[in-house]
Amino acid sequence: MERFSIVYRLAGSETDAYSKAEDICLEQTVEFPGELVPEGVIREHIVGRIEDFQPEAADSYRVTVSFAIETAARELTQLLNVIFGNISIKPGYRVEEIRLPESITKAYRGPRFGKRGLRERLNVAERPLLFSALKPMGLSAEDLARLAYQLALGGIDIIKDDHGLTNQDYAPFHERVQLCARAVERANRETGQQCIYVANVTAPYGEVAQRASFARDCGAGGLLVAPGLVGFDTMRSLAEDDRLGLPIFSHPALLGSYVLSPQHGLSHFALFGQITRLAGADGSIYPNFGGRFSFSREECRSIVQGTSVSMGHLKTIFPCPGGGMSIGSIPDMIRVYGSDVIFLVGGGLFKHGPDIVENCRYFRSLVEGVS
Amino acid sequence: MERFSIVYRLAGSETDAYSKAEDICLEQTVEFPGELVPEGVIREHIVGRIEDFQPEAADSYRVTVSFAIETAARELTQLLNVIFGNISIKPGYRVEEIRLPESITKAYRGPRFGKRGLRERLNVAERPLLFSALKPMGLSAEDLARLAYQLALGGIDIIKDDHGLTNQDYAPFHERVQLCARAVERANRETGQQCIYVANVTAPYGEVAQRASFARDCGAGGLLVAPGLVGFDTMRSLAEDDRLGLPIFSHPALLGSYVLSPQHGLSHFALFGQITRLAGADGSIYPNFGGRFSFSREECRSIVQGTSVSMGHLKTIFPCPGGGMSIGSIPDMIRVYGSDVIFLVGGGLFKHGPDIVENCRYFRSLVEGVS
Repeated sequence: MERFSIVYRLAGSETDAYSKAEDICLEQTVEFPGELVPEGVIREHIVGRIEDFQPEAADSYRVTVSFAIETAARELTQLLNVIFGNISIKPGYRVEEIRLPESITKAYRGPRFGKRGLRERLNVAERPLLFSALKPMGLSAEDLARLAYQLALGGIDIIKDDHGLTNQDYAPFHERVQLCARAVERANRETGQQCIYVANVTAPYGEVAQRASFARDCGAGGLLVAPGLVGFDTMRSLAEDDRLGLPIFSHPALLGSYVLSPQHGLSHFALFGQITRLAGADGSIYPNFGGRFSFSREECRSIVQGTSVSMGHLKTIFPCPGGGMSIGSIPDMIRVYGSDVIFLVGGGLFKHGPDIVENCRYFRSLVEGVS
Repeated sequence: MERFSIVYRLAGSETDAYSKAEDICLEQTVEFPGELVPEGVIREHIVGRIEDFQPEAADSYRVTVSFAIETAARELTQLLNVIFGNISIKPGYRVEEIRLPESITKAYRGPRFGKRGLRERLNVAERPLLFSALKPMGLSAEDLARLAYQLALGGIDIIKDDHGLTNQDYAPFHERVQLCARAVERANRETGQQCIYVANVTAPYGEVAQRASFARDCGAGGLLVAPGLVGFDTMRSLAEDDRLGLPIFSHPALLGSYVLSPQHGLSHFALFGQITRLAGADGSIYPNFGGRFSFSREECRSIVQGTSVSMGHLKTIFPCPGGGMSIGSIPDMIRVYGSDVIFLVGGGLFKHGPDIVENCRYFRSLVEGVS
């Protein structure tokens, strides 16, 4: 029986950490008193197995536990459950890294476009890509479409709904998506560029698929999904849907609680890199260091690693740092991220000067020629 | 414009906490630089509003922020986003309580059965209800069905799939659900009781609704959903589906990271009480104090409060403490919880003695006559 492995950081003394590791083996699989686990396949294969146990710091251990691939049932929901379902409720357990054999990854399509496919779609060979958001909430669909036109005219590559724009009365989904997709098409005809409008399809269970189809039919060039709100598997389902065939951008809303503590939860690498990628996103949005959120430079670097680490056939995807970035910080960020990145500047683009098109052009000038 | 209110606990000095409160007002709505927020409706109504600001402890403040109901767009996904989407990524923000006016709650059906409806369905007027789980993972569908029969024969009221049983090859969903539902029906015919089998429909996006329909058609008497894995709105959708008409039990898998820190995340009251209820669960499963998880007695008490606090027309629901409870602890737990509770004993039921039916009868004897 083939197995997949999870690297955990377990807090405590050697004895404590080892007992946490043993606990994972039972808790994440049979949830049964160890002494009563039936002999045979269940005890030998289904119960998790400690594969490696190494001190990491004074009070934590880096521990690899393997699980039979069958426990995850070829379902992302159940894979996440085996990785961290019940132990999410216990302090001192943190998922550091996910290691999946080909027999699991082949069950996932993963990112449809990945870095290379998205660059082809946008017709941008080497430079960093530019990403912005339609906001603020409360504008009408017409006003948002006007803004989309201006952003596209100014040279932004990807224009998304702000993640809080869903189906509010002031800019209902269908009207907004239709007008914004059209506005970006119009700008593209004028500029000759291939900017895409990305519609937010984070929505009630029964509406996600319909809104995504509608957006595609209107000419939207991508979909925004907040997996913390709709579930990672919902994103996977959209990414794998051949009738849609659109790039997917993942938004971190409601996911912060998983990464804020170094002692519990999921690592930035695993959550915003590996899991987001397994769930089919082509771009992973996360709050950049130095902005209005709290991620460190090191944490952001680990996200970049998670978007590009080898994971079987899964394509590498774009890190999309955002969240309070100013245009002024772009040259510094290019030094940190290089050119294989999507810079998401939302509010900062409005702050730079009174003319939004000019602000975009300036933003664009900072990345031209970077490779 | 009507508003709903969220009570947050914000960490830091008065200045820090106040600035966090101001941040919530922008971050959770317009996500826009404060000085550039358009005058008029957007600035006056859509931006959040600090309604109350009180010291709570030496380094934290209890702050009420109100939001226009329109920001939540009558969608649970977007309501959760306004409540805690982006600020989940910032340390020192915790949701304590959710206060929704009737204009929002009326958009939700909420729990279909609630406490009273579930008691009627199970034909148990007053005593605590008994809940157990089919396990361990790795047993065949036949073995699980045999176990379901024994648990029902022994007097358990609600028998659920272990939350890790989804669609593994050793006990595929359709086969398992069919056999287990049938086994419980057979036991009911013998005992004259109305035990229900609760099928786990935590599944990939495209399969949740189908599995739920199949379970209902097979005679399952309830559905188990882990909203941390599939999203809260998926659970709401199942709860509101009149073609199903089944009680829903919510499982806490992957939700632990929201509540482990007293400084960030969601309160136990809000998450396992209010949100779970708004999303339509009739019973909220959570790890009891004194078991193998870490919740305190006080935290468990706050969950009970969240399941029963007034929330417009929403029915009150059952707290379902579980997670490492032994049968021996039941008398103590009755003193804590009273009779309006569902005791979930899984592994502990197997540990008590060699004869599972006898263990169930003993468990049952402990709650008989309690009211």
